[in-house]
Amino acid sequence: MYGNYMISILGYYSTQFGELWERSLFDLVKESIDSLLKESKIEKKEIDAIFFSNMMSGILENNLHGSSKIAQLLNTHIPIFRSEAACASGGMAVYLAVQYLKANPGKTVIVVGAEKMTDFSPEEAVEGLMAAASGEEQEAGLTFPGLYALLAQIYLNSYHYKHENIGAISVKNHFHGFLNEKAHFKRKVTLKQVLSSPKIASPLGVLDCSPISDGASAIIITSNTKKIKQAKRTCSILSSEIASDSISFMERERLDSLTSTVVAGNKAFKEAGIKRSDIRVAELHDCFSIAEILGMEDLGFWKKGEGGKRALAYETMLGNSGSIIVNTSGGLKAAGHPIGATGIKQVGEIFLQLTHQADKRQVHDVYYGLAHNVGGSGGTAVVTILGI
Amino acid sequence: MYGNYMISILGYYSTQFGELWERSLFDLVKESIDSLLKESKIEKKEIDAIFFSNMMSGILENNLHGSSKIAQLLNTHIPIFRSEAACASGGMAVYLAVQYLKANPGKTVIVVGAEKMTDFSPEEAVEGLMAAASGEEQEAGLTFPGLYALLAQIYLNSYHYKHENIGAISVKNHFHGFLNEKAHFKRKVTLKQVLSSPKIASPLGVLDCSPISDGASAIIITSNTKKIKQAKRTCSILSSEIASDSISFMERERLDSLTSTVVAGNKAFKEAGIKRSDIRVAELHDCFSIAEILGMEDLGFWKKGEGGKRALAYETMLGNSGSIIVNTSGGLKAAGHPIGATGIKQVGEIFLQLTHQADKRQVHDVYYGLAHNVGGSGGTAVVTILGI
Repeated sequence: MYGNYMISILGYYSTQFGELWERSLFDLVKESIDSLLKESKIEKKEIDAIFFSNMMSGILENNLHGSSKIAQLLNTHIPIFRSEAACASGGMAVYLAVQYLKANPGKTVIVVGAEKMTDFSPEEAVEGLMAAASGEEQEAGLTFPGLYALLAQIYLNSYHYKHENIGAISVKNHFHGFLNEKAHFKRKVTLKQVLSSPKIASPLGVLDCSPISDGASAIIITSNTKKIKQAKRTCSILSSEIASDSISFMERERLDSLTSTVVAGNKAFKEAGIKRSDIRVAELHDCFSIAEILGMEDLGFWKKGEGGKRALAYETMLGNSGSIIVNTSGGLKAAGHPIGATGIKQVGEIFLQLTHQADKRQVHDVYYGLAHNVGGSGGTAVVTILGI
Repeated sequence: MYGNYMISILGYYSTQFGELWERSLFDLVKESIDSLLKESKIEKKEIDAIFFSNMMSGILENNLHGSSKIAQLLNTHIPIFRSEAACASGGMAVYLAVQYLKANPGKTVIVVGAEKMTDFSPEEAVEGLMAAASGEEQEAGLTFPGLYALLAQIYLNSYHYKHENIGAISVKNHFHGFLNEKAHFKRKVTLKQVLSSPKIASPLGVLDCSPISDGASAIIITSNTKKIKQAKRTCSILSSEIASDSISFMERERLDSLTSTVVAGNKAFKEAGIKRSDIRVAELHDCFSIAEILGMEDLGFWKKGEGGKRALAYETMLGNSGSIIVNTSGGLKAAGHPIGATGIKQVGEIFLQLTHQADKRQVHDVYYGLAHNVGGSGGTAVVTILGI
């Protein structure tokens, strides 16, 4: 909670995630904003500002100045901001919106994120994604699967695990995606399928990797106490914290952990004033299976090195005994990863859980949840803690 | 002034603007941050966050996630944010920094903006710049000189002026640039030269147009009252306001005015609690000569339609009788327009004026100043009012 007033979420809408051939980037933005306002029963004139998250439209379609494009869609003169922090663009937009609301009590904003990736060849998309890495890593021919494969190799070697200890994450997240109508992949996979999937960068197979997706997500956040009191379904943002780290692996302090997640997580728990064990649902940045395990350890949910064992026990899968259920949306792996939308979808999924709107994937007795969004290979991390 | 505490500028540094063949984008960022800290006698550990403004590095050099690249340069984990709003990216970064400081009393931030444009062919740069315009305008083959030439034609026809009425702006700004060591063009031009310069898009000749430049600028802003009291040279940010508008001319209410400037300007004067006549120095967004005239009218300094006459009287030139002196830096026209840096250089120039550090271009008896930064052809406008 911030000062004397709460900052709360009033609504969430996400488009379908997937290969949306007939929709443009701003078709998706428009659907998400229009539907969000309609479902939340909030009028356009009640919105004081918009925060827009997008990573790649400049590179892929020579399309910048999205703030002005949204102004045209909505026929408005309100402030509109674009934020970009690679795959953490959505989390950064949420963070900046929270700062705006802390600075401006009584205001209401939309945070919308979108990405349109499938209109381009995989080569174009992969090269564009590397814009989030360091120059040396680009020149060395690395890709993001390659970078995370290096992290996976270090982790498996350091803590004596096998591919199955990380691959189990994909099995769990596909099981959750199977329950999410909006997911890019609404199907289960077996551990055998993950382990035998074609290698992208050893040890990571294609089923360890999140897909290239189209989609948009949007939430309404307010610091207007009257609106919060009137809302039928709402939850509060208890903290939103962000930390950065060197973009190059070469310059990092360690490689079995993402320091940006550790720093942002510690700050977020301190600000929220709750314990790790209070968190019952979390959306973690599982761009690759290994990333969710590092995230669980770096956020302090699991001890360093324990993750491989606990992942293979499926502790964080719906219906299982773990104290925390992770990535009920399907995560980036199964729900999909339209980059600009991801950080907002994560916060939206926690909103659905805390307000008991998560349908077949509802976790019971939830009072607190966490969203964890990572840019690049850990150059930026955002941690947002929500509560009812 | 915001609430009970002030938000003040503690220092400003700008690199040389121009064709800097031997410097990369992040060379320029590093020079501006390192030199800013050194000259301001502030240590890196005193900085709580960084706001980074850049428009085109994604398109031109497949370079995104600048927040993490800056984290590496500075070996830090503090929050770093990238903002993009086309040519208003710098103004937007200042705005977001002010919001952050309003939300977090006692904090100190750097706002840094940079652009590296001359490593690319003019065709690549011009095409990339069009990313800030609408899809229809891109498809129609328009360029930004073309878009502003349309505005100039409408203005000249509506108010019965000739090219000389707008071209005089370039003469004035080149005279100011002649006095600024950091300017891209440190030379005077005559009105005859402007009028006979090769046409880019009629009525605009090359000497009506700002150049493609490299450069970086940075300021330190704080909400820490102790730091403000200790500072030898400081001025306050009285207001920072932003407004948006439809990106396409087709969807605008009128074309002899930029509505985003009108809306942002009115809000900024209301928030600052001062009158137009209190402003003694201003940096206006003169991407083209016509743009400064529209800006003067839209900000309420000149009545609608008067601008052509008053520009030709050189009222706003150093040493002349006008109540307000405009673009002492040389403006975008002569100081140069490294996009991400521009909005920050504007605020920095006002800081220099208000703290009597503007050397040969110092305006006397200055207590209030204004910076006006425009994105695209008016899709975004930011107005920042400063005072001592």
